[in-house]
Amino acid sequence: MTDKLIIFDTTLRDGEQSPGASMTRDEKLRIARQLERLKVDVIEAGFAASSNGDFEAVQAIANAIKDSTICSLSRANDRDISRAAEALKGANRGRIHTFIATSALHMEKKLRMSPEQVLEQAKQSVRFARNLVADVEFSPEDGYRSDMDFLCRVLEAVINEGATTINVPDTVGYAVPELYGNFIKTLRERVPNSDKVIWSVHCHNDLGMAVANSLAGVKIGGARQVECTINGLGERAGNCSLEEIVMAVKTRRDYFQLDMNIDPLHIVAASRMVSQTTGFVVQPNKAVVGANAFAHASGIHQDGMLKARETYEIMRAEDVGWSSNKIVLGKLSGRNAFKQRLLDLGIQMDSEADTNAAFARFKELADGKSEIFDEDILALVSDESVTHEKEQYGFVSLSQHSETGERPQASVVFTVDGKEVRGESDGNGPVDASLKAIETHVKSGAEMVLYSVNAISGSTESQGEVTVRLQNSGRVVNGVGADPDIVVASAKAYLSALSKLHSKADRVAAQG
Amino acid sequence: MTDKLIIFDTTLRDGEQSPGASMTRDEKLRIARQLERLKVDVIEAGFAASSNGDFEAVQAIANAIKDSTICSLSRANDRDISRAAEALKGANRGRIHTFIATSALHMEKKLRMSPEQVLEQAKQSVRFARNLVADVEFSPEDGYRSDMDFLCRVLEAVINEGATTINVPDTVGYAVPELYGNFIKTLRERVPNSDKVIWSVHCHNDLGMAVANSLAGVKIGGARQVECTINGLGERAGNCSLEEIVMAVKTRRDYFQLDMNIDPLHIVAASRMVSQTTGFVVQPNKAVVGANAFAHASGIHQDGMLKARETYEIMRAEDVGWSSNKIVLGKLSGRNAFKQRLLDLGIQMDSEADTNAAFARFKELADGKSEIFDEDILALVSDESVTHEKEQYGFVSLSQHSETGERPQASVVFTVDGKEVRGESDGNGPVDASLKAIETHVKSGAEMVLYSVNAISGSTESQGEVTVRLQNSGRVVNGVGADPDIVVASAKAYLSALSKLHSKADRVAAQG
Repeated sequence: MTDKLIIFDTTLRDGEQSPGASMTRDEKLRIARQLERLKVDVIEAGFAASSNGDFEAVQAIANAIKDSTICSLSRANDRDISRAAEALKGANRGRIHTFIATSALHMEKKLRMSPEQVLEQAKQSVRFARNLVADVEFSPEDGYRSDMDFLCRVLEAVINEGATTINVPDTVGYAVPELYGNFIKTLRERVPNSDKVIWSVHCHNDLGMAVANSLAGVKIGGARQVECTINGLGERAGNCSLEEIVMAVKTRRDYFQLDMNIDPLHIVAASRMVSQTTGFVVQPNKAVVGANAFAHASGIHQDGMLKARETYEIMRAEDVGWSSNKIVLGKLSGRNAFKQRLLDLGIQMDSEADTNAAFARFKELADGKSEIFDEDILALVSDESVTHEKEQYGFVSLSQHSETGERPQASVVFTVDGKEVRGESDGNGPVDASLKAIETHVKSGAEMVLYSVNAISGSTESQGEVTVRLQNSGRVVNGVGADPDIVVASAKAYLSALSKLHSKADRVAAQG
Repeated sequence: MTDKLIIFDTTLRDGEQSPGASMTRDEKLRIARQLERLKVDVIEAGFAASSNGDFEAVQAIANAIKDSTICSLSRANDRDISRAAEALKGANRGRIHTFIATSALHMEKKLRMSPEQVLEQAKQSVRFARNLVADVEFSPEDGYRSDMDFLCRVLEAVINEGATTINVPDTVGYAVPELYGNFIKTLRERVPNSDKVIWSVHCHNDLGMAVANSLAGVKIGGARQVECTINGLGERAGNCSLEEIVMAVKTRRDYFQLDMNIDPLHIVAASRMVSQTTGFVVQPNKAVVGANAFAHASGIHQDGMLKARETYEIMRAEDVGWSSNKIVLGKLSGRNAFKQRLLDLGIQMDSEADTNAAFARFKELADGKSEIFDEDILALVSDESVTHEKEQYGFVSLSQHSETGERPQASVVFTVDGKEVRGESDGNGPVDASLKAIETHVKSGAEMVLYSVNAISGSTESQGEVTVRLQNSGRVVNGVGADPDIVVASAKAYLSALSKLHSKADRVAAQG
């Protein structure tokens, strides 16, 4: 048994399955680069067989990321596994993660297969995958609610077929630490050759215990891989949070006695990038990455804190990448200072042209705003990444007016495939009027399921970042727009979402 | 040992200590009423000696709430304890919760007292408190990091003095479940007469394990009271979440085998009320109360879910108060339907006049908006509760305009102590211009530390709810405003925050 804990990040796969969190290839690539900076051991980049878009994202990440192992999920069938292997061809180290449900409920209701059929398919799939890559992970879906005897038979069989990592998901978030830890321990004691594989935990947070369950799987059960996501992103109550796992293992090294490759300095930048890309806000009282997670970050000094910091703090904010001085750049800052700040924030632009475009937007912003905060830069780059792909709809200009007692009016000029159009409308508010003005031409019929404003640097002087989530015919997309004028930011976000809605392919639902 | 678990809610005390979460007396009373509907056993209503405002809030809650025990925190000195007892006079059942730090670090650095001095003060305080009330809880602050031998001596002494509940705080969120559970177990084994008191757990979430630690204290340690807050509100990463504790104990009754008085149907309304009052958003992937916590609440149907709901769900959304049909009222709805809906949402208005005012606002809103959602009603009532207290600044009307290439302009008419004034300004965006227009008269010098828009029912057609947090001379206040026009909502929120800033008394910092 090794004393190293492997961190397996599935933000781009299980995290992305969260309704409304789907990302474009370029967004995923940007996050993967940040995960590489974090020194994540394994990046689950997607589910290659689920759509062409996902295939391309896994392929792009496998080609670009060289330090981390790149993994693709696949159902337990030859077609899925072949697609995964194909997508992973460019990887330095590629892993196929294949799964099939083993709980009575899932086998009967979802798969409509007998246990013997499931066992056979699991074996065949791992054998097939091992012929394509050396690194094969197997997950019995809903493993924690599976019959122990049957589960042992399945795991014994897939280890014999060459699986190198065995992952035991608590798919529905039903576990408690003591029971889950002992469940893993029992499996490792009962399954022959269990010492030949790495055991992995994958917990969901429905009862608020994903982190504690995962760590019980490690401490009591002897698992040496944890599957987790940035901000705990994921379906329902989400997955186990990477940042909490990492900081718990580091802070309580006396108890866990495990090493990790992770560089926690990049945690906060990763958290912001994922939040801004998906539009999923991080609540202020979220551990490690919430705005209030460190008392002194709030600007309020307490008596105890002033006398001795360790009276109330067990971690240091700067160790996870909270910068103490948030004012970073102004209108006189040059291109090099801007590039350096991007690097400090953990942002790597895809090309010089992208850097130049972002710098141009920065100068534009700095003309209207004396102090540029890190958050402004992240928003600006996030906006840039959204507009990087060729978009069907583009913002040109906007004029709006509201006055108590009258109905708000807006006029928006935007491009449709490069051609300028103008829409005008009234609405319940100026934002509503602006989006309705766009709809007079587009007539998307999309339903807005989320409208959210992420405050940037906490003041209305800064840019507002707006996320709009649209749903149409089963597709859900996010658009993000940033501007000091919240109405303009909203129009940009809406146009970005519409562009995605028209270009996004359908996706296959996957497991947790 | 009882098989009943006591739920002790400290949203109004430890939750309120979160920077920016301070609440007015009326806001606290409204939340206390919702906690009573939830059937919380003990409501910690505040820290009576910390300020006149807090004293009045504890007193008002003690007078109004009859089903729950009402508790006030107090430091371990006669003055604090007398004030607590005074505030609790009207309570059916009142509890004094007194605390003093017992860890070497806190005694030396914060208290600058010797262990013997601390022991003596703890004894005297509990004796003094027991002369005033029958129900006395004692907490050794930073208990989990205290020396076991010393802690046993202190707890033995306070039990001899008549303490009825012993609470063991993990003040800095340093614990892991196994160790914390065994810590409580050891205390109960070693402290004489430990069976004469109720043992209580109080965990913070800095490493993401507050819920699991609390439940280990219950399961392994034998504690029978859990201290928690709605949404896990609290300093830094917050306290243990009430909703997660309750649903974990209910869902895993097979493991915990404990009963509770709680009625979970009121959880979601409580969560929204606390979030809207404090401006602390709940992230979508928050367990139980996040918008995505239940897969089907997202409107996206998945294959497995359609075949059998239990394949992916271990709890039912409706059991915690997620309503399936969110469209509730329209412009033709009458006063009775409105009142009934308030009751269904767990909202009790303070007076008929308040109900009438809220109904008038509802009709106004319904005139401009065809479908009224639960969220709209909660926003409207929340706004009502803010304006309920006599405010120095009041919104009258607003006019604003923004156009690409020009600087946004706003003109705001508002009242200062009843007298109308008009302010005009430009700004980086229409919201910024409106708030600057207000500042031309007010000149508060306050720093804006948070500007947040809580999307209501996910569409720009609905009302926008804006929270503004201002800081000045060490005071932090929230203002909330709701309106279909986001610029108007922002101006209302800003004026509300300014009113609070001018009326709010300083507070004494307390423990966690």
